[in-house]
Amino acid sequence: MADGPEEIGRLIGLMARLPGMGPRSARRAVLHLVKKRSQVLLPLAEAMKAVGESVRPCVACGNLATSDLCPICANPKRATGTLCVVADVADLWAMERSQAFQGRYHVLGGLLSALDAIGPDELGIPKLVARVTEEELTEIILALPATIDGQTTAHYIADALPELNVTSLAQGVPIGGELDFLDDGTISAALRARARV
Amino acid sequence: MADGPEEIGRLIGLMARLPGMGPRSARRAVLHLVKKRSQVLLPLAEAMKAVGESVRPCVACGNLATSDLCPICANPKRATGTLCVVADVADLWAMERSQAFQGRYHVLGGLLSALDAIGPDELGIPKLVARVTEEELTEIILALPATIDGQTTAHYIADALPELNVTSLAQGVPIGGELDFLDDGTISAALRARARV
Repeated sequence: MADGPEEIGRLIGLMARLPGMGPRSARRAVLHLVKKRSQVLLPLAEAMKAVGESVRPCVACGNLATSDLCPICANPKRATGTLCVVADVADLWAMERSQAFQGRYHVLGGLLSALDAIGPDELGIPKLVARVTEEELTEIILALPATIDGQTTAHYIADALPELNVTSLAQGVPIGGELDFLDDGTISAALRARARV
Repeated sequence: MADGPEEIGRLIGLMARLPGMGPRSARRAVLHLVKKRSQVLLPLAEAMKAVGESVRPCVACGNLATSDLCPICANPKRATGTLCVVADVADLWAMERSQAFQGRYHVLGGLLSALDAIGPDELGIPKLVARVTEEELTEIILALPATIDGQTTAHYIADALPELNVTSLAQGVPIGGELDFLDDGTISAALRARARV
């Protein structure tokens, strides 16, 4: 018994596989769980089971939902003409928190990546193209990460939808950002995209 | 819906209460869980349930166990004359990993702390004193943190057991430690406890 009973070792091993966790932090978290059995451990086990049983991807956009359609796709008040394409559900949540977009989403579930062998079919880009025709969209807004893979994916989608107005989030100085702390690429992009005051 | 369905929000809230986790890292972990439903989410829920149902403190020492006695207390090969007192189960595991101690343990479950109103009774120190008489111990080794609370607890235990040989882990330069990176307190302690080469 290196780290307590077998059940504990198994739980530590599983916790250590979570992003941001390692063996040491997993051990600490599990000891905390055991101490707070009724307040944290059992509710957490229940909450995980509930998520595992009820949460699934929205059939339309790929957002997480507890029914076939997520609340955004099911909301008749959301604008139908524009679609915001995001790489991941976390990005959709970030967009929603900003409350700046009133349309619907499409979650790719990743980005094109030659290194990880992720091609257009893995990302469901054919499904996105089909959706464009079905839903009579006028604009697609790409809210993809400003990385090489993000740009590759953006260009691929723009090429696949030549008749459509495909736009992308602006790049520039973040609100509250100080020039001194910004990387050269961001400053160059902000300079190229400068606008009249 | 700020961060997806209610079930997801609940799970994020619970995960965020784990040590080393915050709202952001909990969100990231939960999205990871949802993506790896069968490989991580469901096994993790099961493992937590198993721990919650089967793991409890050893009645003798306070270590985590799945039966009344933990494997260390139940092992007849472990020396019975010496007892190693640790603050927490994590410290017991650390001692066990070092394989340097062959006796049995006593887990206090914390340290004396005026600030947190933790007194001798909360730590089960009366139980420790009773154990000393019952088990005919010859030495108690205090493996407590080298902090103010740890030292307070060490002195309290030594005072409560005047007829016993109460020792404490040596303080000094850690193996591989470079003097340049050590704090003054450690260097002073190592100098005071210097030994012939």
